[in-house]
Amino acid sequence: MRTFALAAGAAALALALPATAQDDAPAPPSPGEIAAAAPATDWTAIAPEDLLVMMLAPAPDGIERTVVIQLMPAPFSQGWVENIRTLARAGWYDGISVNRVQDNYVAQWGDPNYDNPEATGEAKPLPGGLRTMDEAAYVYPRSIDRPRALDPLFWPPNDIHRWTSFHEGFPVAGVGTPDTERNWPVHCYGTVGVGRGMSPDTGSGAELYTVIGHAPRHLDRNIAVVGRVIEGIEHLSSLPRGSGDLGFYTAEEAGKRTPIGSVRVAADLPAAEQPRFEYLSTASDSFARYAEARANRRDPFFIVPAGGADICNITVPVRRADEAGG
Amino acid sequence: MRTFALAAGAAALALALPATAQDDAPAPPSPGEIAAAAPATDWTAIAPEDLLVMMLAPAPDGIERTVVIQLMPAPFSQGWVENIRTLARAGWYDGISVNRVQDNYVAQWGDPNYDNPEATGEAKPLPGGLRTMDEAAYVYPRSIDRPRALDPLFWPPNDIHRWTSFHEGFPVAGVGTPDTERNWPVHCYGTVGVGRGMSPDTGSGAELYTVIGHAPRHLDRNIAVVGRVIEGIEHLSSLPRGSGDLGFYTAEEAGKRTPIGSVRVAADLPAAEQPRFEYLSTASDSFARYAEARANRRDPFFIVPAGGADICNITVPVRRADEAGG
Repeated sequence: MRTFALAAGAAALALALPATAQDDAPAPPSPGEIAAAAPATDWTAIAPEDLLVMMLAPAPDGIERTVVIQLMPAPFSQGWVENIRTLARAGWYDGISVNRVQDNYVAQWGDPNYDNPEATGEAKPLPGGLRTMDEAAYVYPRSIDRPRALDPLFWPPNDIHRWTSFHEGFPVAGVGTPDTERNWPVHCYGTVGVGRGMSPDTGSGAELYTVIGHAPRHLDRNIAVVGRVIEGIEHLSSLPRGSGDLGFYTAEEAGKRTPIGSVRVAADLPAAEQPRFEYLSTASDSFARYAEARANRRDPFFIVPAGGADICNITVPVRRADEAGG
Repeated sequence: MRTFALAAGAAALALALPATAQDDAPAPPSPGEIAAAAPATDWTAIAPEDLLVMMLAPAPDGIERTVVIQLMPAPFSQGWVENIRTLARAGWYDGISVNRVQDNYVAQWGDPNYDNPEATGEAKPLPGGLRTMDEAAYVYPRSIDRPRALDPLFWPPNDIHRWTSFHEGFPVAGVGTPDTERNWPVHCYGTVGVGRGMSPDTGSGAELYTVIGHAPRHLDRNIAVVGRVIEGIEHLSSLPRGSGDLGFYTAEEAGKRTPIGSVRVAADLPAAEQPRFEYLSTASDSFARYAEARANRRDPFFIVPAGGADICNITVPVRRADEAGG
């Protein structure tokens, strides 16, 4: 064996177990095996209105590149989410490009001619009807439902004043007492957020980024979190890094910008073309078992369970609805 | 302004500050500005014996791809580190390839014909003199020096029984009481570790990986951590992902494997070709200020400081010695 294990490979790797281990009880399941065994009722369909389908230009080898984004559910960031649907429905994103790829940080797409001293054309006018959001909306100023059974798993540990958890499939954090509770969505790998200028600007949603490295949690509450990539992030995370400040492609590297063919709300696609996804409900018993197994790996490759996990290491399982198993 | 700020861009972004802010005291420095202002005495040279220079085959566009790895200092993982020097000095790594790239996880290199049912050739014999390490060596069973001034910064919070910290430029974690203290290096973005089979195998160092996603902390104490990439990780993190189990390239994708031309200990290169690097001493006052600023961003882009950071978000500054500034 030359590999180290992940959920997907646990079955194959188990074949290599020494005989002494095989003689005993079956190996504890991996997180992936727990998710795969979850009953259908523990999976929640994602509404087509909450899915964005972004088609990048084909790769140099001709491969099609589709990125699917799940938009943030209420009560978080809904003004920006509405703007993003407005921009998609106006076709505004069609023809823009990925202009910034910074290693261990973000890939960012928008109008390459917007506020760019080296612009080669005019900035694209925004459609009407966009809302201007206030910074206060980075945080939801009230309590939310969250699965308290998960509380013992997290690094840092949850207490009554500060916590991380999940809300309808999304990682969140919060502070306060029951009277003063505030919650907000957090930045993890694959999170989608809204580029902005200096405070008090909050961005419109015309400039978006996704996280392609270790979770930049210092951005939480400083920027609007509007969704997460649920399929095809490798088409963004494997793009060439930009050599300019902040990973922007320089004028000399303009050819490295990846054009975006189209961005559509899935609900607007012909029914046969609408992708159907579901996530493992973060309020379900299956998710609680899955999260516990992520925090304490006991499947065969592991010798010492970690004893906890940070919120971004408990990635919420998502699958195509037509891949639904047992 | 369409960007959001990082240390590198703070100077440029500050120009966009509204007049009210510019009228006040100078903006608090960014983490990068603090590091750049550190006195030369706060930087520590990395010995050429502790640097590996890995030359990948040139990129498709002809660009040279060099990856520099700093090997783990004592007292951690030294048996594997010795093996890696032995393998490099035997020229064993020359001609192997990057065989696995799994999104948000690792890029891994080794002999593509080792333990591979689809091998197209013979596995490469290992050189003599390699040590076989015990699993106990994943952990150093005694206390280490660590900068206690940093203790208040970390998520999760440090206490006398459990902590994260830094040791000679590397992120570490530990548990225990003064009598029973144990410490180990942790997995962060860019960490280099040793691929292995099922327990009790611990790997030789012939198969190595680096982290290209969110820190997989569940691997800590389960696998040997032997160093970190300090330059050129973008040449690994931007490689095409493999579509096989665990991100291995399938037999049909063998052409995507990136050949490794050579791996050399920097000390063995002609003096003029030896890269010279230094890191911001993690025991220095400058590093304490830098780490505090990483945990509580107050430079102009930010409106809410996070109040803490996990160990992997306090990346240790490294620079070419010939870039040394003030």
